[in-house]
Formats: sequence, structure tokens, C-alpha cells
Amino acid sequence: MQLGMIGLGRMGGNMAERIRRAGHEVIGYDVSADSGRDVDNLEALVARLNAPRIVWVMVPSGKPTDDTLSQLGTLLEAGDLIINGGNCRYTDDRRNADSLAADGIQYMDCGVSGGVWGSERGYALMVGGDADAYQRALPIFEALKPEGENGLVHAGPVGGGHFAKMVHNGIEYGMMQAFGEGFATMERSEYIQNTAEVMASWRSGSVVDSWLLDLLVRAMNDDPDLKQVPPVADETGEAKWTIEAAAELGVPTPAISAGLYTRLASRGGADDVLRVVTAMRGQFGGHVTKA
Amino acid sequence: MQLGMIGLGRMGGNMAERIRRAGHEVIGYDVSADSGRDVDNLEALVARLNAPRIVWVMVPSGKPTDDTLSQLGTLLEAGDLIINGGNCRYTDDRRNADSLAADGIQYMDCGVSGGVWGSERGYALMVGGDADAYQRALPIFEALKPEGENGLVHAGPVGGGHFAKMVHNGIEYGMMQAFGEGFATMERSEYIQNTAEVMASWRSGSVVDSWLLDLLVRAMNDDPDLKQVPPVADETGEAKWTIEAAAELGVPTPAISAGLYTRLASRGGADDVLRVVTAMRGQFGGHVTKA
Amino acid sequence: MQLGMIGLGRMGGNMAERIRRAGHEVIGYDVSADSGRDVDNLEALVARLNAPRIVWVMVPSGKPTDDTLSQLGTLLEAGDLIINGGNCRYTDDRRNADSLAADGIQYMDCGVSGGVWGSERGYALMVGGDADAYQRALPIFEALKPEGENGLVHAGPVGGGHFAKMVHNGIEYGMMQAFGEGFATMERSEYIQNTAEVMASWRSGSVVDSWLLDLLVRAMNDDPDLKQVPPVADETGEAKWTIEAAAELGVPTPAISAGLYTRLASRGGADDVLRVVTAMRGQFGGHVTKA
Amino acid sequence: MQLGMIGLGRMGGNMAERIRRAGHEVIGYDVSADSGRDVDNLEALVARLNAPRIVWVMVPSGKPTDDTLSQLGTLLEAGDLIINGGNCRYTDDRRNADSLAADGIQYMDCGVSGGVWGSERGYALMVGGDADAYQRALPIFEALKPEGENGLVHAGPVGGGHFAKMVHNGIEYGMMQAFGEGFATMERSEYIQNTAEVMASWRSGSVVDSWLLDLLVRAMNDDPDLKQVPPVADETGEAKWTIEAAAELGVPTPAISAGLYTRLASRGGADDVLRVVTAMRGQFGGHVTKA
Repeated sequence: MQLGMIGLGRMGGNMAERIRRAGHEVIGYDVSADSGRDVDNLEALVARLNAPRIVWVMVPSGKPTDDTLSQLGTLLEAGDLIINGGNCRYTDDRRNADSLAADGIQYMDCGVSGGVWGSERGYALMVGGDADAYQRALPIFEALKPEGENGLVHAGPVGGGHFAKMVHNGIEYGMMQAFGEGFATMERSEYIQNTAEVMASWRSGSVVDSWLLDLLVRAMNDDPDLKQVPPVADETGEAKWTIEAAAELGVPTPAISAGLYTRLASRGGADDVLRVVTAMRGQFGGHVTKA
Repeated sequence: MQLGMIGLGRMGGNMAERIRRAGHEVIGYDVSADSGRDVDNLEALVARLNAPRIVWVMVPSGKPTDDTLSQLGTLLEAGDLIINGGNCRYTDDRRNADSLAADGIQYMDCGVSGGVWGSERGYALMVGGDADAYQRALPIFEALKPEGENGLVHAGPVGGGHFAKMVHNGIEYGMMQAFGEGFATMERSEYIQNTAEVMASWRSGSVVDSWLLDLLVRAMNDDPDLKQVPPVADETGEAKWTIEAAAELGVPTPAISAGLYTRLASRGGADDVLRVVTAMRGQFGGHVTKA
Repeated sequence: MQLGMIGLGRMGGNMAERIRRAGHEVIGYDVSADSGRDVDNLEALVARLNAPRIVWVMVPSGKPTDDTLSQLGTLLEAGDLIINGGNCRYTDDRRNADSLAADGIQYMDCGVSGGVWGSERGYALMVGGDADAYQRALPIFEALKPEGENGLVHAGPVGGGHFAKMVHNGIEYGMMQAFGEGFATMERSEYIQNTAEVMASWRSGSVVDSWLLDLLVRAMNDDPDLKQVPPVADETGEAKWTIEAAAELGVPTPAISAGLYTRLASRGGADDVLRVVTAMRGQFGGHVTKA
Repeated sequence: MQLGMIGLGRMGGNMAERIRRAGHEVIGYDVSADSGRDVDNLEALVARLNAPRIVWVMVPSGKPTDDTLSQLGTLLEAGDLIINGGNCRYTDDRRNADSLAADGIQYMDCGVSGGVWGSERGYALMVGGDADAYQRALPIFEALKPEGENGLVHAGPVGGGHFAKMVHNGIEYGMMQAFGEGFATMERSEYIQNTAEVMASWRSGSVVDSWLLDLLVRAMNDDPDLKQVPPVADETGEAKWTIEAAAELGVPTPAISAGLYTRLASRGGADDVLRVVTAMRGQFGGHVTKA
């Protein structure tokens, strides 16, 4: 099978490689000249692919994805298929699909999990779109997914792939926060002599056994107290979108919110909240609070 | 009526003054020689009071209170009454009362709200103890409370005064946090041109009209964006005890917890949580997070 | 001054009355024939007003407001001014303003607080829009607001009025939740003999003194344990929008979220969350959980 | 090696069996006559063991454990060792150890994870106590733990085993809550056609891959929407103790709190909170809320 891959960064590049290893032909394009790209521009990419084409878009969400989809809309033909594998918000997918459908171009969204390990372990894929488009691209999905029965799902209609990935990442925020809270509590307690050893022991037989725990233990092997790691964490949108989608659906998400809010506060998001609290305390109690 | 007041700091000193203005006699003692104390030690205080005595203890919770109560236990006689007005945990009160009861000394606990304004506005008092002890000290409570029908309550048995005050402060944490969240959101929004003006406008006719809002507006008069206030806030135990007591009783307290946790994080309490989150992100996604 | 008021329900009707009491002429319209309306349809309303007109729209958000604005767009003329006082999301206001501006019609949004008490106490108003439009409608705002210096603010550009009101209500959710948590904790504690009395006592001299507390005490006068009140609470959007807006701005809002999430859970929003927890517990621990 | 096992319920019985399979001699006692016990009372158990004895206590926390330890204190001799494997709070362990040390009896606490699967997979063990006691009982720990390098840790001094287990379970609460929130959000979304399939797909290659996910998928095999599971969840203390211990140490634990509070609310813990919210809404807005 033949595939065009747009975006050859850490994710796209490894994915192209994994697809090739499965015996498919991948024509790669990236805006960067030293990306190892096969063609120098989108026109050349489209020209190299036999119709009906399948093009996988793996570029940053927002303007890069929007621009790429817009250009593909003019370059591709009826019957071609675009798979958007970037981290878009699910609400963008319907708009994209409707716009491309006017020219007869099919659109699917695909949430991709697995990070830098995916090249080796395979990528967990969550796909949104029509059943026939899903079947058509199935060989590519099969090439990317891990071995075994899991790791690939047709989650729902257009938008469903990114929705599932968004929720997946929301859960991930909650799990990471929970591990962090446990670690922090043990680090400060006189009852625990070596937090890293305790957490490593949980990798067998315990209820919290998980890949995230494996990764944490891996990080603690070189830096048991994690003092080399800065006490801040960035957020990348998915937890924010999850709590918004959940609230619209009437579902409370306090654990996912806890993960998001802790990260926001670490970047100064709670500073003005605290100024209010401390200003009030100064007013009613004469408390003088020092920075 | 005659009263011994132990502890003549910001709270105790103003309270003694207010009681005197109501026509009672107050003999004051403080460990500090330049506190304006009437006597130089506890023995002298007890000697100056006519039996049966009433002694109000207004010293910091923990060791200062414990030591004072312990000494009073040996100096006072059966029939005397101790009122503990410090910020003790309610669980300490029963222990104190039982210990003193062995010598026939009565014990009441009194939660005091009002801060630096109490001298002028009067103090909100929440009292725990027996009905006869409450009646006996009522003239003192009447002197301290604000004018009008509110501001004084016999909350329950020994411990009830501090329990009510603890919950009161827990609520206060939640309210302050809510105001802070609203302020912080408006400060960052392009839709709001002057947050201080918006909040000041709420002092009439709005549902959030409150003394805390009055105090916040007062603080914003000189410093509208509160940039002179450090983005940190200390906690003093009551919210922590409230969420613990509530959890034991099966009551979830997410808003009070939000207030407490935001303050703890501002003092570095979430640093290790964030290190775990960022270490995991580095492992699975190759994300490099900068401080 | 002359004003058209569209929507004569609990809010609009009382507001029209208050404006009239201030000496202005109000022509009222409502879809309901028994609302006491002055005219039977929007065309008649517009015909009765002298150009340049001011029309206040006080109808439910969503379709009713959208339909009304759409019709007014065709009926009104350049130079007329619409004030949208309903509970719209601030993001809708810019769209409305842009659409009407094409026909030269001015648009302002006005958040209104005060509920059923506003008729008597006056309404707290938060206004978004241009300075000249604000000045033009100022006599109406002055008629509606409470006496004194507070209760009215020009919060910012179009959308700012609803943004300020949204945040106001978000804060309100957090405050109500905090009071609820305190009440619930005291109700279950053996240390408190009468929760209603304790909370009533806080109305003087305490830090949590507030209009919400006044209202709660009022509700408890007839029903001290609130057992006549169902243990559920509805949400009406503002807290949801606040936490979304705050998250977009990078501000964590755990206390406001606590208020929202508790209400969502009371309407079954956490049921599936709990099913997952209990299903997992059954799997790993053999725990059998009964409904 | 020889061991006395007190408590032959679901946990203790399976553990005794696993220890025997490793070649050790286990004398079992339980209060229930049809438990398959080897002896009829504690005196007989002690008589059957050769000094210096090792006795593992695996009975419910609270009074059953306290009573058992108290009796063992009189029956055992200097040099004997008690291992408390029940779900005690870590703060009880020091008290127990001190009390038994007066008679020369050693005490260790051991947190045990693994539930009904432990018999087959092995139990994750977290041990608190002195190094020499740990070495002495090591063959028993080795028999119980899973194969491989993990699953057993000497966490710290007396109390450390239960502290580590408590934190472990706290993390577990947070993780379960996060999965629940994700499931609930997808169940209500039109974007997801089959939540169970989506979550099953995450078992390979995804960041949330974990034993808890395996168990959830197992539960969904027979009941994909979990509608047979009641929408309530019980709590068993550990998360409550974790958030208390963390707060004392200055660590905020919003995700673990989220798990606990959601469970408490499902058992009616938020009912009075909601009554307050709804009573206030009725007062200021005239809102009538139906159950």
C-alpha cells in the first residue's frame, strides 16, 4: 500500500519508519529540508501518489494543521483520503470533514498514543470517521498498532478519534497527579526511608501496577528523589478540553481537573488567587505574609 | 464582674480593653513584661482574683496553651472556671476538660472571630461547655460580642466552641478561594478593563455581597491589581482540621480543600507532585520541561 | 427617558416596574398575552418607540434571545440601541454585536444580579459595550441599580458585562458550596447541638458575614435542618463557563469547580464514574457493593 | 520455617496456603470454627509454635486487631515476633510496638496488596520495622511476594509498612476516579460508539496501560455499560488517612481527595451541602428545585 506522510518530526518520522517496516511505501514530506523528506513540497507529494490517495497529516495542531488541510483541499481530488493524526480538538474535525467533503475528499481523525516508545512498542490508535474509510486505511493502522489484539479502535464518527484520545490523555493527567501526590507524601514522611524503593516494589502484585509506574521507576533509577526535575509541569490542552466536554455532558471530573489545575498553578496561574487570599487575611487579621 | 485575662497580644489585649469598657474588672497577665500586664506571674494573677475565679486564656495554641492550662490546674481551686479562647483543635478540649475536672475546675472553649476589627465591631463568639458555666460567664461574652442579636452562640458541649470556629474558618477558606479565582480570571481577560471596579460594584445588590468583599475592595483601593501582595498564602490549621473532621463524618469538602490545597501549593507543597508529572512526561513523550 | 422592555417575566417585569418608578416611560412586550404587556408584538413595540430607540431584551438565553435579536435586527434602524440583559454566554455577545453593527444598530450586554430581591434592593448591573452607548443608557442603569455608590459598573467592551456576571456567579457557586460543606459537617457532629443557631450567630462580627448567610438563616428559620429541601441542586451554565474561560486563561478554579461538580453529581453525573470504581473494586478485591 | 497465622479469611487463608506451597509450616487459627483452623484458640496456637515464634495477624482492623494483639501480648514471650498484616492506620503501629516492646516482643507492620489475585500472582508487601526483624521474617515475605525482583520492600521503621500501603491505596483511589471520569464522559458522548471497545484498545501501546485497566475491561466483558453495577462506592479509610497525613506534611492531594469525596457523596455525604445550595437559590432567585 502507498501512503503520503506529512510531518516527519519525532512522531511522524518514527511512524513513517514503522509503516515502511511493515512493507508499505511511504512518501514523506516535511517543511524542514533536513527532515529526510522524499519531496520538497506538497504539490510534489500529491504528484508522487497514485489516486485514490491516502495522506496522513502529522503536524502540530492549530495553524500548521489548518494550513496543511487547506492546501490539501486544493491539491487532492475526489476519492482521496486524509487522516489527521495530530493533536486537534475533536470539535475541529467535523468542520474539517465538512469542508473537504464538498470536494469529495474523505477525512478521518486519528488519536495516536505511545510517544517516543511507539516506534518500538507500536502506537495505540483511536480512529474517527466512516466505516468504509476505516476499512480502506486499515492496513496502515495495522502496521502502526502494537502486536496483539489491542491498540486499535474505530471509536466513532468523525471527531471520535480525537475525542477518545482527548479522554485518554485526561485520564493520564489524573493518574500522573495521583502518583505525584503519593510520591510527595512519602518523600516528606519520617515513616518512609526510600520512596523510590517503595514505588519500585509496586511493579509486581500491586493494584497500581502500570506503564506510568514503570516509567516513573525508570526516571528514579538515575535520580531517586527527582531533584533534577523542575517542580513545574506544562499542559497541552487535552485535559482542559476533557473537563469542558464532560461539563457540557453533565459529568463532574474532579481528578482530571486536579491534574490540570496543579499544572496551571505551577506556571503562575494561581498567583492572583493567592494575592486575594493574602490581601484579605491582611485586612481582617492583620496577618503579614512574607513571600 | 471580675476576670483574669492571660495573654495580652493583638487579640487578648483588645479583648481585655473591650471587657473593661463594658464595666468589668480585668486583671491582665502576659509573659512579656512590656505588654501592659497588671501582674508579673500566674501566681499573682490567681491571688488577685476572688474565688470562684474566671480566667480567660488567650495564648497561642500548642505548647503555650498546654503549659498555661497545666499551671492553672495547680494554682486554681475547685469551682474556678477556665475559658480557653485560643485556636486549639477541638479534640484537645475534652482532654483539657477531663484533666481539670479531676480538681473540680470547670473548662469552656470559646472560638473567637473578628480579628483586628473585633475591638471596634465586637467579636463573634462560639462557646463549648456546660450550660451552667455558660450562664456564669455570660456577662463577659455579652461584653465581647457585637451589638444586636447575633454574634454569640452556645454551640455545644466542651469542644463545640472550637469545632464551630474551625468550621467557620473552613468556610472562610472556601469563600476566599472563590473570590480569588474570580479575581484572577478577570485580571487575565481582555473582556474586563478594571477588575477592582467590577468587584467594588458588587458591594450593592449582588449575591456575593459580604464582609470579605468589603475587605478586598479596601485592599484594592491602594493596590488595585494587588501586585504589592506576594503570591503565597499561609494556612493556620483550621481548614485542615475541618476536612479531616468532615471526612471522618462522611462529608466531602472539595471547596474547603481547594482553599487549603492552593495555599499549601504556594509554599512548595506540590513541588514533588509536579516533579513526578514532568519526569513521567519526559519518559513517555520525550518532553523537555524548563523551569 | 423612553425604553422598550422585551420579556416581562420575574426579572423583566420587576425591572420595568423599577424603571417606571424612577420616572421613565417603559413600553413592555412579552410573548405571553397575560404578562401585562403594553403591545402585542415586536413590530408594535418598535412603532411605539421614538427613534433613536433603546430596547432592553430580558428573555431566556439561547433560542429565545437569538430569535428576538434576529427580529430586532430587521425591525430597528441605524442609531437604535439594544441592551441584552439575559444570561447569555459572553462569547455570543461579540457575534451579536458584529451582526447588528452591519445595520448600524448598537449593542450592549448587561449582566444583572439581585434575583427576586432586586425590585426592592435594586439590581447589581455589569455592562459591556462602547463608552458612548453606556453614557446614553446611563439613566436606565441608574434607575435599576441600588442606591449608593456601588451596584453599577462599565466592565469592558462588548461581552464584558456577561463576562463579569459569569465570574460573579462562579464565585457565588464557590461560596454556596463552602457554606454547604460547613453546614453538613456541623449537622453530623456530636459537638454541635444546633447548626442553625451557630450559623445565625455568625451574622455579626464574623469573617463569613454575607448576604448569602443572611439568606441561609432566613431559610433555616422555618426549616432549621433544611430537611424540606431536596438534596439536589441544578446548575445554570455560568460556573461551567467560568471554569472554561479560566482554564483557557491559565487560571485554576478548584473552588468554583467544586460547586459545579457537586451539583452535577447530584443529578446523576457521577453515576458512571462510581460504576467504574465499584466494578474495579469487585474485580481486584472481591468487594461486593450494595446499592 | 514455622509461622502462626491468625485470621483465615479471604486474605489470610490464601496467604497461609501460598506460604505452605513454599515449603513452610503454617499453624492457622481463626475465630470461626469452620475456617479450616488447625487450633481452637490462641493459647493452643502459641503452644504449637516453637520459640522464638513468628505470628502473622491477619484480622480486621480496629477492635479485632486490638484484641488479638492484646491477648498475644500476654501469651507470647520475649524474643517472639508479631507481624500485623491487617489494614491498620500507621499511627496505631507505634503504639502497638511500644506496648509489646515492654515484654520483649518484636512487632512489624506489613501492608498487603493484591486482593483475591494474590494467591495466584503473589502479594505486594510493604514492611515496617527493625532491620533484624525484617531479616528474620524474610523467608515468609519471599514466599508471599510475586516472582521477580519487585513486590517486596522494607519501607521504613514501625508504621512504615502501613504508611506505604495507605499511600498506595490513596493513589489507587485517584487512578480509579480518573478512569471513571473518562468512562463516564465517553458514555455520554455522541462521538463514541462503544466506550468498552475504546478502553479495551488502550491495553496495548497507550500511556494508561495498567492492571486497573485490565480489570475494568474484564468487568466490561460481561457488562459493557456497567449497568449491573450500582452507582455507589464505599471507602475503607486509606484515602482519608492519606489526605490527612499529606495535609499534616503540607502536601496538597486534590486527585486522591477527588476519589474519596466522590465515594462519600455517593453515600449521601453531600446531601446537606446540596440542601444549603438549593435553599439559598430558592431565597435569592426564587428558584424552585425538584428532587
